[in-house]
Amino acid sequence: MIVVVKPGTPEEEVQKLAAAIENQGLKIHYSQGVDHTILGLIGETQTIDVHKLRSNHIVEKVMRVQEPYKKANRAFHPDDSIIDVQGNRIGEGHVSVIAGPCSVESEEQIVEIARDVKASGAKFLRGGAFKPRTSPYSFQGMGADGLELLLLAKKETGLPIVTELMDISQLPLFDEVDVIQVGARNMQNFTMLKELGKIDKPILLKRGLSATMREFLMSAEYIMAGGNEQVILCERGIRTFENATRNTLDLSCIPLLKKKSHLPVIIDPSHATGINWMVESMSKAAIAAGADGVMIEVHNKPEEALCDGDQAITPDEFDKIMATLKKYAEFEGKVL
Amino acid sequence: MIVVVKPGTPEEEVQKLAAAIENQGLKIHYSQGVDHTILGLIGETQTIDVHKLRSNHIVEKVMRVQEPYKKANRAFHPDDSIIDVQGNRIGEGHVSVIAGPCSVESEEQIVEIARDVKASGAKFLRGGAFKPRTSPYSFQGMGADGLELLLLAKKETGLPIVTELMDISQLPLFDEVDVIQVGARNMQNFTMLKELGKIDKPILLKRGLSATMREFLMSAEYIMAGGNEQVILCERGIRTFENATRNTLDLSCIPLLKKKSHLPVIIDPSHATGINWMVESMSKAAIAAGADGVMIEVHNKPEEALCDGDQAITPDEFDKIMATLKKYAEFEGKVL
Amino acid sequence: MIVVVKPGTPEEEVQKLAAAIENQGLKIHYSQGVDHTILGLIGETQTIDVHKLRSNHIVEKVMRVQEPYKKANRAFHPDDSIIDVQGNRIGEGHVSVIAGPCSVESEEQIVEIARDVKASGAKFLRGGAFKPRTSPYSFQGMGADGLELLLLAKKETGLPIVTELMDISQLPLFDEVDVIQVGARNMQNFTMLKELGKIDKPILLKRGLSATMREFLMSAEYIMAGGNEQVILCERGIRTFENATRNTLDLSCIPLLKKKSHLPVIIDPSHATGINWMVESMSKAAIAAGADGVMIEVHNKPEEALCDGDQAITPDEFDKIMATLKKYAEFEGKVL
Amino acid sequence: MIVVVKPGTPEEEVQKLAAAIENQGLKIHYSQGVDHTILGLIGETQTIDVHKLRSNHIVEKVMRVQEPYKKANRAFHPDDSIIDVQGNRIGEGHVSVIAGPCSVESEEQIVEIARDVKASGAKFLRGGAFKPRTSPYSFQGMGADGLELLLLAKKETGLPIVTELMDISQLPLFDEVDVIQVGARNMQNFTMLKELGKIDKPILLKRGLSATMREFLMSAEYIMAGGNEQVILCERGIRTFENATRNTLDLSCIPLLKKKSHLPVIIDPSHATGINWMVESMSKAAIAAGADGVMIEVHNKPEEALCDGDQAITPDEFDKIMATLKKYAEFEGKVL
Repeated sequence: MIVVVKPGTPEEEVQKLAAAIENQGLKIHYSQGVDHTILGLIGETQTIDVHKLRSNHIVEKVMRVQEPYKKANRAFHPDDSIIDVQGNRIGEGHVSVIAGPCSVESEEQIVEIARDVKASGAKFLRGGAFKPRTSPYSFQGMGADGLELLLLAKKETGLPIVTELMDISQLPLFDEVDVIQVGARNMQNFTMLKELGKIDKPILLKRGLSATMREFLMSAEYIMAGGNEQVILCERGIRTFENATRNTLDLSCIPLLKKKSHLPVIIDPSHATGINWMVESMSKAAIAAGADGVMIEVHNKPEEALCDGDQAITPDEFDKIMATLKKYAEFEGKVL
Repeated sequence: MIVVVKPGTPEEEVQKLAAAIENQGLKIHYSQGVDHTILGLIGETQTIDVHKLRSNHIVEKVMRVQEPYKKANRAFHPDDSIIDVQGNRIGEGHVSVIAGPCSVESEEQIVEIARDVKASGAKFLRGGAFKPRTSPYSFQGMGADGLELLLLAKKETGLPIVTELMDISQLPLFDEVDVIQVGARNMQNFTMLKELGKIDKPILLKRGLSATMREFLMSAEYIMAGGNEQVILCERGIRTFENATRNTLDLSCIPLLKKKSHLPVIIDPSHATGINWMVESMSKAAIAAGADGVMIEVHNKPEEALCDGDQAITPDEFDKIMATLKKYAEFEGKVL
Repeated sequence: MIVVVKPGTPEEEVQKLAAAIENQGLKIHYSQGVDHTILGLIGETQTIDVHKLRSNHIVEKVMRVQEPYKKANRAFHPDDSIIDVQGNRIGEGHVSVIAGPCSVESEEQIVEIARDVKASGAKFLRGGAFKPRTSPYSFQGMGADGLELLLLAKKETGLPIVTELMDISQLPLFDEVDVIQVGARNMQNFTMLKELGKIDKPILLKRGLSATMREFLMSAEYIMAGGNEQVILCERGIRTFENATRNTLDLSCIPLLKKKSHLPVIIDPSHATGINWMVESMSKAAIAAGADGVMIEVHNKPEEALCDGDQAITPDEFDKIMATLKKYAEFEGKVL
Repeated sequence: MIVVVKPGTPEEEVQKLAAAIENQGLKIHYSQGVDHTILGLIGETQTIDVHKLRSNHIVEKVMRVQEPYKKANRAFHPDDSIIDVQGNRIGEGHVSVIAGPCSVESEEQIVEIARDVKASGAKFLRGGAFKPRTSPYSFQGMGADGLELLLLAKKETGLPIVTELMDISQLPLFDEVDVIQVGARNMQNFTMLKELGKIDKPILLKRGLSATMREFLMSAEYIMAGGNEQVILCERGIRTFENATRNTLDLSCIPLLKKKSHLPVIIDPSHATGINWMVESMSKAAIAAGADGVMIEVHNKPEEALCDGDQAITPDEFDKIMATLKKYAEFEGKVL
């Protein structure tokens, strides 16, 4: 970490600041420019509070040299992490497809879709029981009943289940859920992240609507710091000025997150674009860019979907897309 | 609400869609363009799910005519809402100043700051007991102990307390808190918003980092729909490409939110800019633009603050700023 | 186009507005909601000035049903446009690779790179003679001399040349240039776009840093409206809050632009990411998403490059990437 | 400037890089961290090409300590710049109001508006002769004829004229124009900026739609580096995800630009918001935040305006707003 001292600061004040830093167990290397004194902080700087340092009246700038995350950092964990979900591996060598409806709506719906997506090659069933909706007047999900139906669909098909936890008070209901999803709007719900750090279950962490990749990895770090290192990163579109798509899918996050971190990266083209006819091309692009999986919204009757029908594809369409994606995965030397 | 049907859609399919809409209690007005059939939906359209409608394969576009919020909507509530907090009124005719440190750190700190800001004219004491921090390795707040110290400071000074709730599990601890703050990162924590709709206590709702004004008002609607109409809106900077300030303070939200809604609007220049020497000019600008109050971070020793010291000002600086703001408030015909 | 009239507007004022609209050759269809009168404008609405209409004091909202571009619109030109550059076709069935250095620096440099990229399969040589640089103190390009060297490299290799025009005063120098590039910062230099509409030469139009896809297509329309329909769209990253990459590459623009328009779409991963090790994965993803080509920065000595060396790859790296891209193109049924 | 070397780089490579830097006239100060070697570059670093440095394969990061602009930098020019336009001073102690229509439309229109705004206290007349419009089918301005009418209005009222130059080929027509405006879309039209650096006339430089403040000041530097130091900065809204206003007015740029630079800062609330009823509150806020002036769109018949009528106010409304703004200016100790 580098601290730039304001021009004209008396030497004794610089010494006072230096002493305070050294008290935190760090060493300092001095560098004198034409106008600026520069302090190079050497040691375990991840725990240093940049804001606090910056607030010192003699400090002009503070710049990090190292990333502030540790457990999620590839520098300290060079090999790819592989998350094992009941024998289904997410990570190197696999392209994991998670498919299912936005919301669980009925037994018939979820079981039928589960069977269909399994037949097409999906390895995980997704479906929302608790739904985060912008409007209080929109359908809020079936809740606990929806979870029951998901477990029923799992029993019928054997597909592990991925579903969203909206509040830690719901956690006791998630015992038999295979992968807990943290939604984009909860990516910085730090209280929840800490709780999820205490359990032993894979977490699919969605990137916040305006989260930088560093913040995204810091949220993963929250979970990992608690002891649960089974984190799957999921990009689902970021918020930009462009309004032709619901969000802007940031595929460049794939190589970047994989360079900075060892965690697997999944792409959700359905939520990112909000447009069903874009799912295929964006899924292909995701695999080509190195994604460890895609999450695709499938609904047997998109027009009657209780939420987000405009981004869902039908089981038939999904089947065709899967045939294409399988070829892309093989082309990348991976198994779908 | 207006539904644009895709060119070339057979009449019977249009009729089918129309019937489905009419089943939801709405009337339809038909309009035939050169290429497009347009359906005007007449009635209570706030409860219509735009996404669902858009997912119909014959629908090209869906456009809202009316805003999707009701209780927060000025159209249905022309007079300004005034929130009464133990005799301190937030809303028309008042410029309410909420001041205090980012985090509660010790009895001495919070009581001293409380006395100072009260002497300078602040009407509310702010201070974080539970702190949302990007890094799990940063100071996370004093928690329940911090709340105790806030109540102590309230006892000493009589200042009502504003403090952040990070999770509904903490709610029982907030009994004596006067105004519950919902942080920017929790603006769409819908489970929490619903719970806050059930209590009888003013809620200071901070705008999410990338929340549109419509989404901001929809989150207020979540709380109000539950029965708690004491919502105070707080703009604290939005996320943009600009990185010279921590966030971009959107002062144009003041006239806009007040046009669309009857709820009071407070500005937080400290978090918005992240720079203490910008607090004065942005506070003045906020009052000039019609804000109902400002929220200012004050710390007796910014350099030793356990969080966000770089945006805090000292009690002395605050005192000078308050003298200026008082004049601005009077100039606007308001009481500070 | 749909015009929503403010509630409570007297009938005679609505009639006055309607008459003014009909005077512009449009028909009107009336629709009466509970609160709002809605006018559906029927006819050639592309030439209607939305801002002007919206400024009428009885108008609450104006919403477009059709896109405001015509010549660039796929609705009026269902087949893909193919741009022929001296026998090299850009568009359906081809993945065109444009490669070369950011700036032309010397004869040796540009000729050597041209030979190398040709040998690896590039079909076009890029190189900047006039360079848009953020700082007036940075290298501004070799100017006219740089153009000479490009033409020399063309002579030596036969590769058609793509290079940027920064101002219409430079146009006479571009006679032998094969494809004129309009840079992102000039995407809305309307005077220049109009001039380029008068010539008979392909234009590679780069998307502005914060241009919506609609604005991007409107800029293409500027050129096409003048008579020059040889426009190639080039996405090169948009500006967002994310700062880990130089810009955010928006690959979802590929299916979207191709749905809305018939023009070919090229991706520039070098400028979009600003990071050389991301070029390969983003190029693969671009082809998988349906791009008609990629534009890659190649420099024989990136470390000595006079501009943007951090995004350039070496000829050797380019050669390896091309081998991979060739397979991806074939996989998509295209020729690279 | 600080250069962070990648961990594990052989010492001889570090020495090679250091030698290359020293060859550019800079001194280097070494600092050795646990993993990283850090080079502090001492001397005239503004001319160093950060991108080039970053492209060196042994370089991990490059960070600036000083801002890259010189002539626009307050560090080298502590006093506020005051721009004198025929006796009208823009800068410290004045709040300059520039008013007039978006476009010049007729002699009657421009002369009438000029008289009205002068009577209300405006010190400058604005009006577009060459208009940058998103659509080629929208009104493009009256061009040279419009300039003639502006000069006529100047003759009639004595008000100096501010009008936009869209291309340097139009420059000869601008001889009698008092202040040349560079539009947001041309903020990085570097060829034009260089030409404007050669003339002796004040330039009103509008901030680009997605320009950071640093880029904005770098564009000012382009003009100043050429010798023309009469630059007025104008914020007119930036592009964000928010779509309730046309752009997001960034008032925090006022204190920030004035801290970093000595140039005067003007605010354009009309273009920023695109909504006429927001002009008053945003103008007040701008003055309260320290702006040196405001630019307000006034049209005698907004509903018949040939462009952007929805953001214009009438001369009567302007007169009332001016009375308020005058008080705000006085309150700030300034003359309007």
